[in-house]
Amino acid sequence: MERLPGFRDFYPEPLPHPDLWSAEARQYLFGKWRAVARRYGFREYDGPPLEPLELFTTKSGEEIVGQLYHFTDKGGREVSLRPEMTPTLARMISAHERSYKKPVKWFAIPQLFRYERQQKGRLREHFQLNADILGESAPAADAELIALLIDVLRSLGLTDRDFVARLSSRNAWHDFFLRHQGDAANEYEFFQIIDKLEREGPESSDEKLRRLGFSLEQVNAFIEKGEPTAELQAILHDLTARGLKDFVQIDYHIIRGLAYYTGPVFEAFDKKGELRAIAGGGRYDGLIKLISGGKVNLPALGFGMGDVVLLELLKERGLVPQLDAGLDVFCLIEDETLRAESLNLIQTLRTAGLAVEYALTPAKSDKQFKRAQELKAAHTVRLERVSAGSLKVKIKNLQSRDESMVDAAVATERLCANRA
Amino acid sequence: MERLPGFRDFYPEPLPHPDLWSAEARQYLFGKWRAVARRYGFREYDGPPLEPLELFTTKSGEEIVGQLYHFTDKGGREVSLRPEMTPTLARMISAHERSYKKPVKWFAIPQLFRYERQQKGRLREHFQLNADILGESAPAADAELIALLIDVLRSLGLTDRDFVARLSSRNAWHDFFLRHQGDAANEYEFFQIIDKLEREGPESSDEKLRRLGFSLEQVNAFIEKGEPTAELQAILHDLTARGLKDFVQIDYHIIRGLAYYTGPVFEAFDKKGELRAIAGGGRYDGLIKLISGGKVNLPALGFGMGDVVLLELLKERGLVPQLDAGLDVFCLIEDETLRAESLNLIQTLRTAGLAVEYALTPAKSDKQFKRAQELKAAHTVRLERVSAGSLKVKIKNLQSRDESMVDAAVATERLCANRA
Repeated sequence: MERLPGFRDFYPEPLPHPDLWSAEARQYLFGKWRAVARRYGFREYDGPPLEPLELFTTKSGEEIVGQLYHFTDKGGREVSLRPEMTPTLARMISAHERSYKKPVKWFAIPQLFRYERQQKGRLREHFQLNADILGESAPAADAELIALLIDVLRSLGLTDRDFVARLSSRNAWHDFFLRHQGDAANEYEFFQIIDKLEREGPESSDEKLRRLGFSLEQVNAFIEKGEPTAELQAILHDLTARGLKDFVQIDYHIIRGLAYYTGPVFEAFDKKGELRAIAGGGRYDGLIKLISGGKVNLPALGFGMGDVVLLELLKERGLVPQLDAGLDVFCLIEDETLRAESLNLIQTLRTAGLAVEYALTPAKSDKQFKRAQELKAAHTVRLERVSAGSLKVKIKNLQSRDESMVDAAVATERLCANRA
Repeated sequence: MERLPGFRDFYPEPLPHPDLWSAEARQYLFGKWRAVARRYGFREYDGPPLEPLELFTTKSGEEIVGQLYHFTDKGGREVSLRPEMTPTLARMISAHERSYKKPVKWFAIPQLFRYERQQKGRLREHFQLNADILGESAPAADAELIALLIDVLRSLGLTDRDFVARLSSRNAWHDFFLRHQGDAANEYEFFQIIDKLEREGPESSDEKLRRLGFSLEQVNAFIEKGEPTAELQAILHDLTARGLKDFVQIDYHIIRGLAYYTGPVFEAFDKKGELRAIAGGGRYDGLIKLISGGKVNLPALGFGMGDVVLLELLKERGLVPQLDAGLDVFCLIEDETLRAESLNLIQTLRTAGLAVEYALTPAKSDKQFKRAQELKAAHTVRLERVSAGSLKVKIKNLQSRDESMVDAAVATERLCANRA
């Protein structure tokens, strides 16, 4: 029986096939995401993977339904697997807004789902780091969020030679639109054309722009000039103070597809420009009010960073560390009359926090030793009977080949010290 | 807008309401699960939360459909949110069986879903630690798995005064059934009666047993005698060698509801007996063959441990640690002309691995200090201009109230040392 198309299995390393996904690489990524978010003072939350369909259509309109993994449940409810986290965040904060001091800085690592037309290799699920700041309208919050994005990528070994965060502003485009007498009814359509500029042919873009009373020339001149708004200047100033200036550039090509963004927006890309965006986000000051039905009104901003493009980039740069069992000790049981005592030693070592493996059933010495090597154990230990039947532990360092013979109590101590 | 009935939101601490679920308590639990499983040499895997419906009906028959969260997707496929992890594990190992050395020791922390009739407070999802050993039929594997279960609970602060693993055997009951001339066609029905013995009235149980040619008296005598089979003796012997004897007892009341168990079975309970089972599992030697359509045949055993009952027990015993922001440093910015330099210091501290917060916008001194206290920061730091405009860092330990004035470079070093 096969898994569903567009879904992934995650296997332990070493992977049987390079096309498979690694559960341990995923945990490595999640660990970094979590650690850096916490360093920035972000707190973790999560919601259900399944929500009322209405939660997602309220925000993005009925047209999003075509991309949703939605269905009718046994109770007759219209429900959907979550395609994004922001509506859940808005729902959660609205329910308990007064209990949390502003600004609220929250993160989550949800699995998200989309039911798009099946294309070869196109996934229907991915994991995403979502980080949001609620209740602060100053550009200092945008800078803090972008700094988090940059430091998450740096913590994975990526540098300013590998990626750049392209920073733009809905407000800058809004002003451009007004300055050139655009018709308010067409503004979102105009934003959509800008969003597709880099993917569409210039003739097609120009034609579409002209229909709204603009020209590609005008638009390109504005992008080329790339003059930062006061808001963007404040963000740049803040990031410069942190020493992160080389990781950002003003780039008005970025505008973000979704309707609800209101201020600064940004996307991070690999510098070779071969991959889709690594992360993207921006301000969405009106959304909490919309989703809470007017109950709560908070300025807000956030970004999402998916696991698929990021792991692709890390693999390409050789930045996924060797992930193995992380075994500290393999206990060799060569004398079966010592199995009970060996189990006792294994228990002691594990209780001390060491990762320990052994052969569950009697096996030849060389087979046990080979298994220890396959599992990349740091040490082997072996109980040996010495004078007058007393027991000692022989410790072997599999890297240096050093051996020593010690009492059981000393063995635990020494192995713990060697690990740290 | 409300979340769906039976689903949980997970909030950051401190929780606005005691009935809410804590994302940080959940992460604490997952962290312990993961750490102890790794100590035992188990490797992580995961599969999709959504699988073909057939994967679950193959194993447990059509009658399980009533409890599944299943539906028809947009491609006309019959699919289901996973109610348990074992079928996914069997599917995954069958696809790449030759690539993994036996015994395979794998764990996962899936979210599982059931659509049961809605009862007050009854959840439709939970998380579960799943640990399985594949490819080893010796009782040493059962002992290793039960030892893991015990040590996971011990790592959370629970002792042999808090819980016990009740150990039983399908084989023992199978032998009992044959010895008393049971009709093979009725064996599963007989197991179901045993499974419900502790929850049903004795008259009702006796009546049901008599219909199959047994009596409650016979059954109770067998349970009371509780003579361990050779297999169970081997498991007890192994656990005794590890010093874990006090955590287990033979108890033939346990038989496990599901059809597919084949050998030793067990469940862990709180000793007060107030809660549902904390964990349960056993051997299912025929299942991999069944699910793989005969492609792969591996003896197997595993257990599941849910987050709901366990968190309930930990809360009751006061064993959930105080979970707060874990903030190392709050940076006070009292002189706004020093904001850029303060951001630089914050960046340095965070890069060194410290969790640092600060006020995004200008705020009064006492308000900033109050926020530092609310977030339970270990230290505050504050840049101060000293002679000739040079800058020093004033560090304050919020516990001891000790203050010191140092150079920025020294500040990072000292704060990192204080944390470790």
